[in-house]
Formats: sequence, C-alpha cells, structure tokens
Amino acid sequence: MTERIQEFLRNRRNEGHDVEPCLVVDLEVVRDNYQSFAKALPDSRVFYAVKANPASEVLSLLASMGSCFDCASVAEIQMALAAGASPERVSYGNTIKKERDIARAFALGIRLFSVDCTAEVEKIARAAPGSKVFCRILYDCAGAEWPLSRKFGCDPEMAVEVLDAAKRLGLEPYGISFHVGSQQRKVKAWDRALAMASSVFRDCAERGINLSMVNMGGGFPTKYLKDVPPVVQYGRSIFRALRKHFGNQIPETIIEPGRGMVGNAGIIETEVVLISKKSDEDEVRWVYLDIGKFGGLAETMDESIRYAIRTPHDGAEMTPCVLAGPTCDSADVLYEKLPYPLPVTLEIGDKLLIEGTGAYTSTYSSVAFNGFPPLRTYHI
Amino acid sequence: MTERIQEFLRNRRNEGHDVEPCLVVDLEVVRDNYQSFAKALPDSRVFYAVKANPASEVLSLLASMGSCFDCASVAEIQMALAAGASPERVSYGNTIKKERDIARAFALGIRLFSVDCTAEVEKIARAAPGSKVFCRILYDCAGAEWPLSRKFGCDPEMAVEVLDAAKRLGLEPYGISFHVGSQQRKVKAWDRALAMASSVFRDCAERGINLSMVNMGGGFPTKYLKDVPPVVQYGRSIFRALRKHFGNQIPETIIEPGRGMVGNAGIIETEVVLISKKSDEDEVRWVYLDIGKFGGLAETMDESIRYAIRTPHDGAEMTPCVLAGPTCDSADVLYEKLPYPLPVTLEIGDKLLIEGTGAYTSTYSSVAFNGFPPLRTYHI
Repeated sequence: MTERIQEFLRNRRNEGHDVEPCLVVDLEVVRDNYQSFAKALPDSRVFYAVKANPASEVLSLLASMGSCFDCASVAEIQMALAAGASPERVSYGNTIKKERDIARAFALGIRLFSVDCTAEVEKIARAAPGSKVFCRILYDCAGAEWPLSRKFGCDPEMAVEVLDAAKRLGLEPYGISFHVGSQQRKVKAWDRALAMASSVFRDCAERGINLSMVNMGGGFPTKYLKDVPPVVQYGRSIFRALRKHFGNQIPETIIEPGRGMVGNAGIIETEVVLISKKSDEDEVRWVYLDIGKFGGLAETMDESIRYAIRTPHDGAEMTPCVLAGPTCDSADVLYEKLPYPLPVTLEIGDKLLIEGTGAYTSTYSSVAFNGFPPLRTYHI
Repeated sequence: MTERIQEFLRNRRNEGHDVEPCLVVDLEVVRDNYQSFAKALPDSRVFYAVKANPASEVLSLLASMGSCFDCASVAEIQMALAAGASPERVSYGNTIKKERDIARAFALGIRLFSVDCTAEVEKIARAAPGSKVFCRILYDCAGAEWPLSRKFGCDPEMAVEVLDAAKRLGLEPYGISFHVGSQQRKVKAWDRALAMASSVFRDCAERGINLSMVNMGGGFPTKYLKDVPPVVQYGRSIFRALRKHFGNQIPETIIEPGRGMVGNAGIIETEVVLISKKSDEDEVRWVYLDIGKFGGLAETMDESIRYAIRTPHDGAEMTPCVLAGPTCDSADVLYEKLPYPLPVTLEIGDKLLIEGTGAYTSTYSSVAFNGFPPLRTYHI
C-alpha cells in the first residue's frame, strides 16, 4: 500500500467516484520490481507475462525499461508492439495456437514460439518458417500456492522428439521452458527443474541438436498474507542451480515474471454491501463485498490465493467471516472453508482494501455477469 | 440443435466469419420454453432470471409474451424495463444490494425486493419505503447438479423475525422464497421446500403477519448429457405439493426459470486448436478448444456441468480426452477428472458444437483474459 495509492483513493472518494470497486496500480512499484528482477538475475532476459496485467501503462513502462514480453495471443502481441516493444523482444508463449494466429504473429515480425508437441511444431513450420521454438516440459510444481496442472508441457523424453521434429522441419530448436508453479515460495524449486532441463540439453546434443536457451518461466511470488523471500534470494539460488547443472556452459536464460512484476503494485478498493448471519446461533458472519469471483477475484477459486485485507477498524477484535461476492451465484464465495477474520466492528458501507491485487484481476473480470460492470482500473 | 442454428452456422462459415467461437441462441426455442412453463404452472407468474442470458432479444421476446423479470442488479432492471417490462413486472431478486442501488431501483418504480436478513430490510425501509419484500430461506439442494451454497437465505426461524422487522418498518411482508438448486433433476425437491414454506407461513400468521406469496425460485433443468423430466412433470409435482402443504389456501406463486428458459436454446461453436499427448505412453489425449472456462464455460468449474458435444466424426470410435481451453491458465481445463470421450478421428481445425449453452455462458465470459475477446453471441 503506497502513499500514492492512498492519496488517489482519498481524492476519488472526495469526488464521489467511489460507487464501484476499483483496482489502483502504482507504476512506481512496477518500476522497482523490474529493477529488482534485472538486478537479481542480471544474465537473464525478462519477458513480462502480459496476461498478468496488460494495461497499456504497464506495458509502456516496461517497454521503456527494456523488458521483453511473453504473450498468450495475437491481441497481446499487438499490445506489446503498440507499447513500443520491437518484435524480437516478443515471444508467443502459449503452447496452444491456431495456425492462422501463428501466421498473423509471423506477419507482425514474431520469430519466437513456444511448443509442447509435434503437431504444434508442424503448424509453426508451415506458418512461421525458420522461427525459433522452445519446448515446454512438464514439472510437478510442489510448493506452489497455485500449482499448475498438466495442461502445458510434455515429458522430457518427448521434448527431445519435439525439438528434433522442429529441426527436421527447418525451424531453429532454441531451447526448453518449464514453469515451477505460480506463487512459488520455495527458492529451490528451480534447482530440480534446471536438472531436468540440463538432461534434455544433453539428450538433444546426442542427436546433434544444440540448444542454447532455458526459459525458466514465472512463478516468482508476490506477498499476500505470508512473507515471501526477496527476489535476490531467487536470483542467487537460480544462479547456483545453473552452475551446478550446466557447469561452465551456462545457457542463455529467460524469466517470465507476471505476478511477481505487478501483484504487489495493485490494491482493490471494495465496499461492504451486507453483513448477516444465517441463524441466531451461527458463530460465523457472512460479509458480502461489491467484488467477488466474477468481478476480478477469480484466483480465490478453491480458496487458492488468500489476499491480505485492510479495514478501517484494524486493531479491533476479530471474528471469523465467510467472505462472498455480490452476484446471485452461489459459487461466488471467496473464503468459506477457512473463514477470514475481520473486525467485529465492521459495518455495511465500510471500504476495504484488498492488497496484492495488481496481477490476474482486471482481465479475469466477467463482461457483465449479473449486470455488474467489469472492474474499473487506474494505473498511476 | 435446431435447423435454424445449423443454417446460421453454415452461412457464417461460408462467409468466413468463423474465426472465433460463438454462441447462437434460437429464440423460437425460448418462445417454446416460455409457453411450456406457462402451461405447466398456469397459476404461477414467471419471473425470468435475467442473469441466465440478458440479451436484449431474449428480454424483448419474453416481455412481449407477458413474462416478468427477476433482476440481480440495477443494470439488469434497466435492461428489463428497456425491453418493455413495466416496473410491476420486475423484482430486485438479489439479497445483496447497496442501499443506493435500492434507491435507484425504487426511483425506477421497482416495489418488490428480496431479503434474507434484518440489515437488508432496514436498507429497503429507508430507500424503498412501503415496498413488498420476500425472505429467502435456506434449503439444502440435494439432487441438484449445481447445488447452491449457504450464500443466500436464512433459517426459517430467522425468516419470521426478518418479515416481522419488515412489517414494523412499514414494508409489506409479502412472502418467502427458496431455491432447490440449479439444474435440479428431482421433481420432488420442491415438496420438501414447500413444506418448509408453509411452516413459515403458519409461524408468521401466529405473529399476525399474513404472507401471500411463495417464490419457488428456479432450478428447472435443461438437457445436457442426461435426460431431464419435462417441465409438465415439475408442474404437476409442484401443484400436488402446494395442495398438500397449503390445503385450500394456496398462495400466489412465482417461478424464476433461467437455465430452463434459455439453456437448450443455445449452441456454442468452437474449434479444435490442438490435440496432443504428454508422453508416448499416455492413453489420454489432450484436446484444446478455442473456448474454455474464461471464455464462457465457467460452469465447468469442478466439472459440474457436463455439456453434450457434437463433432463432425460422430459415430466413429471414441477415446477418452482431457478437454481444455485456450488460455495460458492451468486452471482452464474443462474435463479432466472424468475424461470426455471424443472420436479418435478428431482433427485440429474441426468445429465442435457444445449443446445446451444458452444459459450462463455469454456474461460469464472474461473481459479480455489472455487477450481473448468475450464470447460473440447471435440471437436468431
């Protein structure tokens, strides 16, 4: 929570514009985060994961600082280019792409693509001939708060075949990628993944394929309720793992921070719409906010991400609350299995601040579910 | 799947407009559904649950047929009024409302509000004096495919207190409401809920509060993979339960179909973007579509709603597939715990038709997650 955000919210309230929830992102924090990554991993190129927060203000700032961009769609590629990134600073990092979208990206100058199977390599060979590809390998993500499914990546053995196919089809087998899981709080998670990566490098070399890049993905955490290690610790640990597994032939590396770049830069202001109990005997109060799962807080799915929440009554006695959103959807409940402690003095109409909401909020917002408008955002 | 939708999709394809997924809703089916409800429950007023599909074409059609509207927000109220409904045909059916939104609804002529606690009654007494209120009671929803949480409603005993408060504060304690759970396939579910309702009627009468309305909510199913009973069976069963529990003093009744009104009227056309395996040994193929959880299929959450899917290869041998969406989000997987059988001959680029998608799809769509545009919709 920065002074700049506090002042912005104060002014908004004074002008009477606080009738809907909003996200405020402090670009100074994004700037600091970029510098921390650049300093902690000086030999890695930073590809910001645009999907975390594609606001033009964020993209322009990062482009001006020299960041590269990891894009999930042609629309994101266009946004990165519009923000000032040249095409060689952009990767099409989604392993799932329509062939016509690959062709559109190629026409825009993009030459770096992600794959995890031979069928995708074939599309790229046809629609983006000669491009560089990196193959994503499966990794099991222990220790991540938002562990990834098996959706992306293939077994390391298959990765060798995929990169071999790329070479045969005239593409440049550039390297491999992995993802240690989002909000990864174990700095050592990268060690095991880099061991796998180096083994794929060796298997490829035996087939005459010389890889040169490891994309170490994202996963860098932002602070929610629990403290997280500073990015410099991640940097040191990753560097040690690179030395350990690649010796004196350390490859080019890429990192793709998203949450770690913008998460702690944002605050959502929300209003308490209702406080109630279901019966006179109930211990737990229900607190309903004007934002929920469908208004931007999708990452509370399965109560995965537990945000820190500030209230005007902090310091008062706390009682457990079920926290829910404003829609007529019974699934729109944020925290229930593990109730959230909030002050007993909390009142209808109070404004709450949900911290660490700069990433994966604004674009998750539904178009108009229950008639509620998408989350309003301000980047200051 | 109607002839009209088939023809529409054929034309769209011939014109080359099929580059993105889309939802097509056949208004003739909506018309038939409305008539079925009106015939099956001739003494109930139909309040269409606008949140299920708020397209102006759907609202205008239903308004012209005499439907009333259950609205979750002021925006939905405005849409219902714009579609031609007069204010007395509109209820503000969300139990969670900001006081200033109640005032806005009141200014638009709305006089019927839903509550489930005294705090909400107090807001309505201040912002919409003299209005009718109905209190939602908790019901446990056994038998529903999308069972509701405890988010809405209060214990029956508390409902009596809430309605008593309404009376004391100058409101009209009009009745009670319940919801048997969405996609409720047990016609008898309403029997137990109506027993509860009649008991609240009696308890209120003892305090001198004479209720006159039971809002029996929605929950009427639409056909996905399994067959569902026709609405006429629900009508008969509900009528029997009303007679059983209310004798010769049957109250006014309201039903709020949403899914049952529009679900089977819609088809989503989607494209197969990628088919792959994670390793050579894997039995299960991964099939990636250009629509997923964040493009409109939010109800596949926890694999709750299992849609019927048609392919151009129906009749061929089937193999189990994990079905996933196109975003870089590992949670964007539709069916994995119980893999979905699809033809072995399925190919990248094939168009699939997802049936029963007229409800709870278009507005759930995210604004721009991963840069993908919201679901395109056509109401024909």
